[in-house]
Amino acid sequence: MQSNAKLQPLLSPDSIAIIGASRNPGKLGHVLVANLIRAGYKGKLYPVNPAGGEILGLPVISSIEQLPSEPDLAIIALPREQVLGTMHQLAAARVRAISIISAGFRETGRDGFELEMAMAELARRKNILLLGPNSLGLINTDCGLDATIAQASPAKGSIAFFSQSGALCSAILDWADGESFGFSKFLSLGNKAGLSEADVLEALGDDTNTKVIIGYLESVDDGEKFLRKARMVTEKKPVIMIKAGTTQAGARATSSHTGSMAGAVEASTAAFQQAGIIQVNDLESLFDLARAFSEQPLPQGPNLTVVTNSGGPGILAADACESVGLHLARPAQKTLDILTEALPPFASIYNPIDIIGDASAERYRTTLNAVADDEYTDAILVLLTPTASAEIEETAQALIDMAKKCAKPIFACFMGEQRIGTGRDMLLAAGIPCYNYPEPAVRAIEAMHAHYRWQNRPYPVEVCFRRDKGKAERIITKARAVGLKELPFHDAMEMAMAYELPVPENRFVRTSDQAVRAAKKLGYPVALKIVSPHIANRGDVGGVALDIHAPHELRQAWFSITTRAQRKRPDAYLTGCLVQTMGPTKAREVVVRFTQDPQFGPLISFSLAGPAAEMLGDISYRLAPLTLQDAQEIVREIQSIPLLRGARGAEPVSLTAIEDILLSMSQMATDFPEIQEAELNPILVDAEGALVTDLRLTIG
Amino acid sequence: MQSNAKLQPLLSPDSIAIIGASRNPGKLGHVLVANLIRAGYKGKLYPVNPAGGEILGLPVISSIEQLPSEPDLAIIALPREQVLGTMHQLAAARVRAISIISAGFRETGRDGFELEMAMAELARRKNILLLGPNSLGLINTDCGLDATIAQASPAKGSIAFFSQSGALCSAILDWADGESFGFSKFLSLGNKAGLSEADVLEALGDDTNTKVIIGYLESVDDGEKFLRKARMVTEKKPVIMIKAGTTQAGARATSSHTGSMAGAVEASTAAFQQAGIIQVNDLESLFDLARAFSEQPLPQGPNLTVVTNSGGPGILAADACESVGLHLARPAQKTLDILTEALPPFASIYNPIDIIGDASAERYRTTLNAVADDEYTDAILVLLTPTASAEIEETAQALIDMAKKCAKPIFACFMGEQRIGTGRDMLLAAGIPCYNYPEPAVRAIEAMHAHYRWQNRPYPVEVCFRRDKGKAERIITKARAVGLKELPFHDAMEMAMAYELPVPENRFVRTSDQAVRAAKKLGYPVALKIVSPHIANRGDVGGVALDIHAPHELRQAWFSITTRAQRKRPDAYLTGCLVQTMGPTKAREVVVRFTQDPQFGPLISFSLAGPAAEMLGDISYRLAPLTLQDAQEIVREIQSIPLLRGARGAEPVSLTAIEDILLSMSQMATDFPEIQEAELNPILVDAEGALVTDLRLTIG
Repeated sequence: MQSNAKLQPLLSPDSIAIIGASRNPGKLGHVLVANLIRAGYKGKLYPVNPAGGEILGLPVISSIEQLPSEPDLAIIALPREQVLGTMHQLAAARVRAISIISAGFRETGRDGFELEMAMAELARRKNILLLGPNSLGLINTDCGLDATIAQASPAKGSIAFFSQSGALCSAILDWADGESFGFSKFLSLGNKAGLSEADVLEALGDDTNTKVIIGYLESVDDGEKFLRKARMVTEKKPVIMIKAGTTQAGARATSSHTGSMAGAVEASTAAFQQAGIIQVNDLESLFDLARAFSEQPLPQGPNLTVVTNSGGPGILAADACESVGLHLARPAQKTLDILTEALPPFASIYNPIDIIGDASAERYRTTLNAVADDEYTDAILVLLTPTASAEIEETAQALIDMAKKCAKPIFACFMGEQRIGTGRDMLLAAGIPCYNYPEPAVRAIEAMHAHYRWQNRPYPVEVCFRRDKGKAERIITKARAVGLKELPFHDAMEMAMAYELPVPENRFVRTSDQAVRAAKKLGYPVALKIVSPHIANRGDVGGVALDIHAPHELRQAWFSITTRAQRKRPDAYLTGCLVQTMGPTKAREVVVRFTQDPQFGPLISFSLAGPAAEMLGDISYRLAPLTLQDAQEIVREIQSIPLLRGARGAEPVSLTAIEDILLSMSQMATDFPEIQEAELNPILVDAEGALVTDLRLTIG
Repeated sequence: MQSNAKLQPLLSPDSIAIIGASRNPGKLGHVLVANLIRAGYKGKLYPVNPAGGEILGLPVISSIEQLPSEPDLAIIALPREQVLGTMHQLAAARVRAISIISAGFRETGRDGFELEMAMAELARRKNILLLGPNSLGLINTDCGLDATIAQASPAKGSIAFFSQSGALCSAILDWADGESFGFSKFLSLGNKAGLSEADVLEALGDDTNTKVIIGYLESVDDGEKFLRKARMVTEKKPVIMIKAGTTQAGARATSSHTGSMAGAVEASTAAFQQAGIIQVNDLESLFDLARAFSEQPLPQGPNLTVVTNSGGPGILAADACESVGLHLARPAQKTLDILTEALPPFASIYNPIDIIGDASAERYRTTLNAVADDEYTDAILVLLTPTASAEIEETAQALIDMAKKCAKPIFACFMGEQRIGTGRDMLLAAGIPCYNYPEPAVRAIEAMHAHYRWQNRPYPVEVCFRRDKGKAERIITKARAVGLKELPFHDAMEMAMAYELPVPENRFVRTSDQAVRAAKKLGYPVALKIVSPHIANRGDVGGVALDIHAPHELRQAWFSITTRAQRKRPDAYLTGCLVQTMGPTKAREVVVRFTQDPQFGPLISFSLAGPAAEMLGDISYRLAPLTLQDAQEIVREIQSIPLLRGARGAEPVSLTAIEDILLSMSQMATDFPEIQEAELNPILVDAEGALVTDLRLTIG
């Protein structure tokens, strides 16, 4: 506990009052006192209960007023009706932190919600750190503090855990108990009326006894703050999180559970990604990764070498390796020479290095020494199956010896249970992650390498744009004044120009005669597009005609697109049409959008135009404001990027032109949170540049 | 062992000779005898060794000639040089089955391969069942037979396991030893010189003591036979398999390991799917599913009800549910009424049913009874976290009691380790699968429901086509006679017509004058396409002009497509051009292909035309011959199917027309294995029908 001074009264209190302490072992107020004593808390403990007497050898204080000193931390385990009153008393007694175990607040409906708001307000006004309510409590193994109502205390370790679900905390404590899995801090956030995930993350980031932070979240309260804090923490240490409620079904379950709003999955995924948080989808991965990160250095490259005494598991490791995007290292010639010399003739010296079924510990040792020195190997995975001649404990020892002198990360997979048990325990005790199967080991290595890349990414470049914000403001104000939800096309184009987006010249016209005159001024070829406040997507109703070369074609086009649109949408009022200069004819079409996410703010997306990209989910996302790198990544992340890079003989298009548009839109989304949604669809892009031929802006 | 009579001498031998039996406990020949005795084999055992004497109390026979009777099974554990000679002697002694533990054959190179071929040939000629070589042996717990060199014997159970990797066998036996996981049969296939996976699968399918078959394969020898046998077996019981070597890296590792050719992943995936085999990607899932399938009935619908004492895990279960495509059941009003009555006010009666942290075993019992009777619930998942008031063993008992009277499948997830240990053991002992986390439980339920759908699928309809096979044969023969690798366009079109594929009228022309004359005969509009034996994809070189309406346009098109193609591919010889009637103008474009897979035969694929489908992997596959259902599924399986069904205001196209083309191509691929590859690209399809406007046929 050094620099996380802010949470000191909560995490390392000098004294603790337990409000609602009880002599009855079945009560939470008793469990709290018992846990504090059992874990060996060294500060002062004040059980508080009007009945007085003694609990587990401690004298009971009969009321908060009677406390002999001002406790740093008070823990409340009272019926919910008494909580707010008690908080007032504690505030008067100048308590600095309160942890509320009591439940029955926000999660139970309107009354509970209002009560909780009052508690939060009180804590804020009195500057009291508030954990919960509806929390299981907290643990700090550095100072022997177990202020939970859980049944088990974890061992000391370097992993910090925080969770929005209390029940999950108890499951994890029970699990850790049997798995030699140690924690530095353990925090049950409960309803987060006071301390949020961002506060806790920041404190754990500063905690020198914490090497890895893992967390379970159902909702994020202040997305922007969370992102900012998380980004700083992940510079220093890995943060691995599971976000529950990422599907429709899960989100429904979330809101019925905590009353919290689940935001768009895409937004939270983008947030985690941009903050360098490692997101996992299931609890097993959370702990697999936590162990790996806490015990081994990060692989500095993607090249994995697999050493195995059996072919099958080696193949499974190779499959897993390619599936997650790691490479099997190609060992240096020197390494191959050593292996050829040292290994029996039927062994495979290529990676996976199969030292075959009769491999002794000595053969493992020789192979591992060669691999440890191999310049093309960034990480090592050692597989062992309990063959008749396997020397299991001796092999474990060989790994342990090598790990001591090797700077590269080392992982083990000893397959089986009974015979390999001792070997596995030796490895775990020595800090070598040991898995039952090759696949989770490979997934852990990949996550660690990704984190290495994150920590060594180029310094983010903030981009500031020339823009006419005053003009933009006038456009928005005007639209709001008349209660428009969608900006008229003309105004949208003006907005685009205020943000220096490349737009075609265009004229709004009400008759085909006007259209012909407009086209003459713009110069052929032109495009003709219907305009209607009721039709969002012109393409869907056939309301677009392209590449018109002459007046008679233009008149024909007018007739056909307006009748087609009117037939498809008889309810829609057609204001007129737009005549536009044509964009480059051999351009590819892409789409840029943003929406305002309630938790994380503006979410920018990029994809190719057309329904296929959407249907196949080939869309990439980032939260605004975008850095230059974000803009570069969002373009290159779509799976179909080869189509823009010139696959199949097509000319490559200017990705920079797209990046510029993304950055402008990021600026617009940040400048005007009142723009609920923007869609630039399509943007024509070729080798020379880009052209936004259509855009829609919706205001809230 | 009833109807798997074919393998009886191997699986249930009356007497066994151990060739290479040894008194030295470090030798495999000793381990074999020791394992046979330990497992309690009831038949006659004849250890054979020229040294004579006694091994573990059994008299040693000094040579094969001296055997007192003809043993059903002989096990060979000798150096590889002696194996073939020994097999000759055993054949003379009329042994009916041989299991070869010895290694050093196909997996070691050319000499070993030839030796193995000779052994296989001998076994075939003498009608001897041959397991291995390079096998760990086999186990049949029904008759106390452990003929392996493994260190552990498994408990009796209803799961049969076969594996191409021997080392994996030892790992699994060691693992099962600690996990109360029982096996009926256990077979290490080794190099599969004699018995193949298809033979073993058939035998296990007939075995009445086996409820579930699980397997690990690196290669399939005779794909067609495997498919045929597997399809019969999966009608009766679930087959769950892991196929290793499914990535490039894995495939390279496979071929260096066993010397076997890894086929296209798409082909083996299609084969597993068409045979109703459940394919998993990692070992953990293999055993998770095996346990679920062996212990619970199949869910008859996709509706899962989750009962939990904590919100967080409930949300994770809901997320997992939607991710795999299951539904959270909507309980009937009657169920809701019962729950409202019985549960405390803060409980959530909707699914996941959250009976909250202080739930007693009695509350679980009440809830489970209501859910068991709920008509909209097909499967039940019960989550428990060890909260302070959780009654863990009593809750386990409540589940067990309910499972006895409830016909629906029930799964448990007791989270934690220490405190929930006894409860979990109770559940496992009672045949209720119990997982550590919600996600694997949900995945198991999904796999079981998918298998239910497989077993209840409509009866497959075989389709036979009118076709002019004689004409097709003449075309192929002519092309082969002159050594052509790709059929000239004209011949390809003739083939198409022989298979009654819908093709446009077309003329091959050598000059633009000829083109104009041809277009006049066909009638405008026409398409013009270059023809060159050197250019596979005309589109890539700009060699296609569409929708030509007049002679002057045609001449212009001729000039531009030929010069464009010549500029892009100066090396290519242009034979001429094709003039074609235009297809429907508002059609969508799709692609049908087939290739001959070395292991599984013709592999048919379907996708939308254009590079996006390929890049995003939105292609579906089936092996020929296709049934009518296969053809229907392959079309509907692509993710972008809504585009063909009329998403976004487009007209739906005729899927039946595509199915007809798929079925014709399946017939062609089956009729002519010498056609290595076929590509119909694009096929124009609209509401009325389809038109194959281009096709390429490559012959081998």
